[in-house]
Amino acid sequence: MQRKSLADAECPVARTLDQVGDWWSLLILRDAFAGVRRFAEFQESLGVATNMLSRRLDKLVDDGLLQRRVYAERPVRHEYLLTVKGRDLFPALAALLAWGNRWLAPEGVSMALASLSSGDLLDPVVVDATTGVPITPETAVLTAGPAAGPEILARVRRKAAA
Amino acid sequence: MQRKSLADAECPVARTLDQVGDWWSLLILRDAFAGVRRFAEFQESLGVATNMLSRRLDKLVDDGLLQRRVYAERPVRHEYLLTVKGRDLFPALAALLAWGNRWLAPEGVSMALASLSSGDLLDPVVVDATTGVPITPETAVLTAGPAAGPEILARVRRKAAA
Repeated sequence: MQRKSLADAECPVARTLDQVGDWWSLLILRDAFAGVRRFAEFQESLGVATNMLSRRLDKLVDDGLLQRRVYAERPVRHEYLLTVKGRDLFPALAALLAWGNRWLAPEGVSMALASLSSGDLLDPVVVDATTGVPITPETAVLTAGPAAGPEILARVRRKAAA
Repeated sequence: MQRKSLADAECPVARTLDQVGDWWSLLILRDAFAGVRRFAEFQESLGVATNMLSRRLDKLVDDGLLQRRVYAERPVRHEYLLTVKGRDLFPALAALLAWGNRWLAPEGVSMALASLSSGDLLDPVVVDATTGVPITPETAVLTAGPAAGPEILARVRRKAAA
């Protein structure tokens, strides 16, 4: 499917997918959250070609999700660390993981999240920060925000007319 | 980047990306959550070629995220409805939306979530269902689950050794 740029789309979901909707980028971030930092480690985990991994890491750095840091001088070697923006994707990744465990793991849970303080397994659920009410299609609806422009307003209007 | 199949990967994040990691598939689901059902409506919203949209809708039906239903007989016309499995992705989409609004919307929030009961704007946050504690890199860590096999155990072992 032809890829039109979504970076300029108004919808924040589309913009998000432009930065992390790439299949490999999210797996790189998953590995980064699991403590992977170095090129060779990402390559071992993902089993991809050098130039392809290089390109994806560069894009994640350009988009501000990872930062590159020198860890050896001769020869120069870099490691890749999550930025604040990158670390802030952890909850969304947790929500995707929970869905995968519910729907795509018939043999049982092979990867999960554990509490760093208690070690207990965690059950990620998305709730409204103010009320604590779970956010589901039964409780919530996509709507235009205060800065909505023509694209979003047309979308909302189409729905209201349906 | 060459696409190896992740459907057979052990990691639930990888399996999830195999079904919904496609950039267009998530936008189709976004539209479905916004009430879009018909081929022409998806096409108007997404601006993609007929054969490409067709292929993506077929994959979402094959994967059990959408179901196809006849709504007109002559000529036969189908609409696409979210399944229970598809609807269960809403929370993860909400978490991605929240991240997009925090990091990629410098001009302000153009699309948001509203409560169906009160109409108030919602602030999606991912918490542990039992304790209510927010799930972040400061509180949680990826770990092997009870059904972990060699792939996940090797990953966890690599991390423990680092």
